[in-house]
Amino acid sequence: MASLSIFSSFLLFSVLLSVQFVEGSVPRFPSSLLRPKLTKTDLYETRYFTQTLDHFNFLPQSYQTFQQRYLVNSTYWGGAEKRAPIFVYTGNEGDIEWFAQNTGFMFDNAPRFQALLVFIEHRFYGESIPFGGKEVAYSNASTLGYLSSTQALADYATLVIDLKKNLSAERSPVVVFGGSYGGMLAAWFRLKYPHVAIGALSSSAPILNFEDITSPYSFNNIITQDFRSESENCYRVIKGSWNKIERVAKQRGGLEKLRNSFKICKDYISEGVIEGWLGTAFTYTAMTDYPTPSNFLNPLPAYPVKEMCKAIDRPTAANDTFSRLYGAANIYYNTSGTVKCFDLDSDSDPHGLAEWSWQACTEMILPTDGNNNMSMFPPSQYNYSDRAGYCQEVYGITPRPQWITTEFGGHDIKNVLKRFGSNIIFFNGLRDPWSGGGVLESISESVIAIVAPHGAHHVDLRFATKEDPKWLVSVRRKEMKIISSWLKQYYEDISHS
Amino acid sequence: MASLSIFSSFLLFSVLLSVQFVEGSVPRFPSSLLRPKLTKTDLYETRYFTQTLDHFNFLPQSYQTFQQRYLVNSTYWGGAEKRAPIFVYTGNEGDIEWFAQNTGFMFDNAPRFQALLVFIEHRFYGESIPFGGKEVAYSNASTLGYLSSTQALADYATLVIDLKKNLSAERSPVVVFGGSYGGMLAAWFRLKYPHVAIGALSSSAPILNFEDITSPYSFNNIITQDFRSESENCYRVIKGSWNKIERVAKQRGGLEKLRNSFKICKDYISEGVIEGWLGTAFTYTAMTDYPTPSNFLNPLPAYPVKEMCKAIDRPTAANDTFSRLYGAANIYYNTSGTVKCFDLDSDSDPHGLAEWSWQACTEMILPTDGNNNMSMFPPSQYNYSDRAGYCQEVYGITPRPQWITTEFGGHDIKNVLKRFGSNIIFFNGLRDPWSGGGVLESISESVIAIVAPHGAHHVDLRFATKEDPKWLVSVRRKEMKIISSWLKQYYEDISHS
Repeated sequence: MASLSIFSSFLLFSVLLSVQFVEGSVPRFPSSLLRPKLTKTDLYETRYFTQTLDHFNFLPQSYQTFQQRYLVNSTYWGGAEKRAPIFVYTGNEGDIEWFAQNTGFMFDNAPRFQALLVFIEHRFYGESIPFGGKEVAYSNASTLGYLSSTQALADYATLVIDLKKNLSAERSPVVVFGGSYGGMLAAWFRLKYPHVAIGALSSSAPILNFEDITSPYSFNNIITQDFRSESENCYRVIKGSWNKIERVAKQRGGLEKLRNSFKICKDYISEGVIEGWLGTAFTYTAMTDYPTPSNFLNPLPAYPVKEMCKAIDRPTAANDTFSRLYGAANIYYNTSGTVKCFDLDSDSDPHGLAEWSWQACTEMILPTDGNNNMSMFPPSQYNYSDRAGYCQEVYGITPRPQWITTEFGGHDIKNVLKRFGSNIIFFNGLRDPWSGGGVLESISESVIAIVAPHGAHHVDLRFATKEDPKWLVSVRRKEMKIISSWLKQYYEDISHS
Repeated sequence: MASLSIFSSFLLFSVLLSVQFVEGSVPRFPSSLLRPKLTKTDLYETRYFTQTLDHFNFLPQSYQTFQQRYLVNSTYWGGAEKRAPIFVYTGNEGDIEWFAQNTGFMFDNAPRFQALLVFIEHRFYGESIPFGGKEVAYSNASTLGYLSSTQALADYATLVIDLKKNLSAERSPVVVFGGSYGGMLAAWFRLKYPHVAIGALSSSAPILNFEDITSPYSFNNIITQDFRSESENCYRVIKGSWNKIERVAKQRGGLEKLRNSFKICKDYISEGVIEGWLGTAFTYTAMTDYPTPSNFLNPLPAYPVKEMCKAIDRPTAANDTFSRLYGAANIYYNTSGTVKCFDLDSDSDPHGLAEWSWQACTEMILPTDGNNNMSMFPPSQYNYSDRAGYCQEVYGITPRPQWITTEFGGHDIKNVLKRFGSNIIFFNGLRDPWSGGGVLESISESVIAIVAPHGAHHVDLRFATKEDPKWLVSVRRKEMKIISSWLKQYYEDISHS
């Protein structure tokens, strides 16, 4: 069971680290499906900023620079003279175009606020690579070492201040937006740089998923609850499947049988790889259980968890467990129905998963891979030393699991933020496994939690569609009303000074 | 005039950088007079913490450690069970014992609050030297590069969290205290680490003395005003002296005459050195114009500016300008009357001035050395490029003059902190030249300015004496009342959770 227990230690957005424990091939996303749906020119223009490599030290090498990419849409901006607002997306672990295209909320609301839109790419992701390119930048800890959340936040502060100066827009208020790790960055940015951003919409940000603040069973139990809420049978089939897979794998010709059952292209597989592949599908489908068709991680129909459970409860081909699971996996991996067999070995990596693996080995130590009896995954304990061993082996460095709470807090957050800070919205959808590590209760009049029982991972940030359910329309309306009140207060404040 | 204009670019606490521009010898404090007045055992015990060299990167070398010194007094502590408070001094640029011994306020009030006292030494100062010692640590930018304010703040957070854990005192509230640069650190610590400290007493912290927020003439005009407030003649004599010095210096045998007039031991002097030496005396005497005898920078009588002006207005020896100035200089450099001649060349450096020179070349770019017509010093413009050139020459690095405001803010601070943050007291004495860069107006109900028109540099933090004037007693009482209210609120908050 050991190998399986690890695959559910997903970080936000990334399965890589966990899957690497499962020796062998790594499930990746078919890159063809992940191509931006919209062309750049529709939404934004691309710019570059000469960014300092190391903000916090003054070593000769700290002064090195790199080109940081950012995207700008000025179509709706009211301009510096009007002190029209600037909405900034604090980029997370991946190509910034991917996030821009999945943060329609900012585009949808820019006209109303006459807002300038800026999406800043996180260092070491997409095109914003120091040291002249990935080959050097990713080669080892001596270069990767500059990939950290604090450096990224300082990048954003530096870039935004410079941009405002160049636009003579020093008095234009900045509101930051972010989802997932980007949502953590948005909240932290407001907390650390209140002089740069007047407020933050932090969507689906598990800022409490560090150390022992959140139960290590929370993540997988929410996934479990998602599937169980569709049908008790769906839950039982999944929960019972792992033993079956392991049993078959041990039989003579068993792996071949598994390969055929799940239509895996190549034959060097293990039960661990298949379990990881299925686990990824369940996990990411739960995360992106949106009420409308989407193409965030993979193309998915509306309510994909429901669809998966349909495939399990009412299989179209054979009646056995593997056929049911195969049907469910198809929802995630093969919505288009065009994939003939699955290549678990693909090298495409559009989401920066390799880089996240570094972050997951240094500061992003989120204990999420415990499974208790309730879980639909096999029982397992969160195991820090496995992680530490892996990181030592691969990068030669030791994680700093206490660093995030040292730098950003987390323990006793209610008492801390009740008396400090303001203007943060924490959105969480309770279908999202990351919501367990989110801020789910309002802390003060202006540090506000918005909780959507039917919501998934930063669903609020997506483009509005005509099919959006009422609760989602209402969540977004509430968010914009709050942001609007921040802006109003800001304009009042500066009118007196 | 060029060389003179520079000596008044003092940083807080340090004259070194400026004086190095005046080629030749550097005025230092007679080290014998600076020995701690109290022995360690009276006030504190010494401990060491294994500190991380680089908190913000994860390079292999970032993981290096050093021994950070801190001082503890647990005589009055009520203990972890009572959740008794912890008062932490955020050490500034020098030996932590020096600051502990000049922060009697914490000792005076510990019994009332049953507080644990902790004084943490700033990295690269005193005994808290990375790389095994000063020889390597100060050798060049590759090692000095780790000396920065953000690293120091992260040191404090890391140490305090660890200390509380070891004492099982996680729920004991921490209040931070600091004066001067240490006061900047205290305020910034509350702003950046609200989860570690519930409040900060930031005394005489010129957090607004960066970029163009504060006039570059402010610093020297406050010094001028201090002397002018004693007598118009005192002001005029000083203001007129610089031309006289320069005129005499140009005469044959003029330097020798100056050397005799000011009883300089050695003969390789220039008028610049003498001007720097006098400027230092005026500046530091204004800074430490305390109402009682003190021994902070140098031993001084009560109201030393008044004493200096007395020496100028009513000279005891001859009547000429130089005799008057010599008498004034004696107040600062020779209170005991035992110094026969002045060695401007002494190598003693108990206050970490060399290290401050590094900080003044990287992030601590405080434009203070402008002199307009009102100033008692010769007219001069603040000149950033002189500084930059010096730093490039000495360390091979370029300052980052915008970094502090990027990281900590400063522009439009009223509107920023009116809506963000809480529990900070900004104390300033208006006799203190640094008060020009301080926060002089309360910003909100809990971000409070206390301004003492007759106060000098962090006078509030000094040990109480029976001779303290009423206004000083009242300032301290007010501070403790406010801190008391923070603690009360904290205990109420945690009692509900």
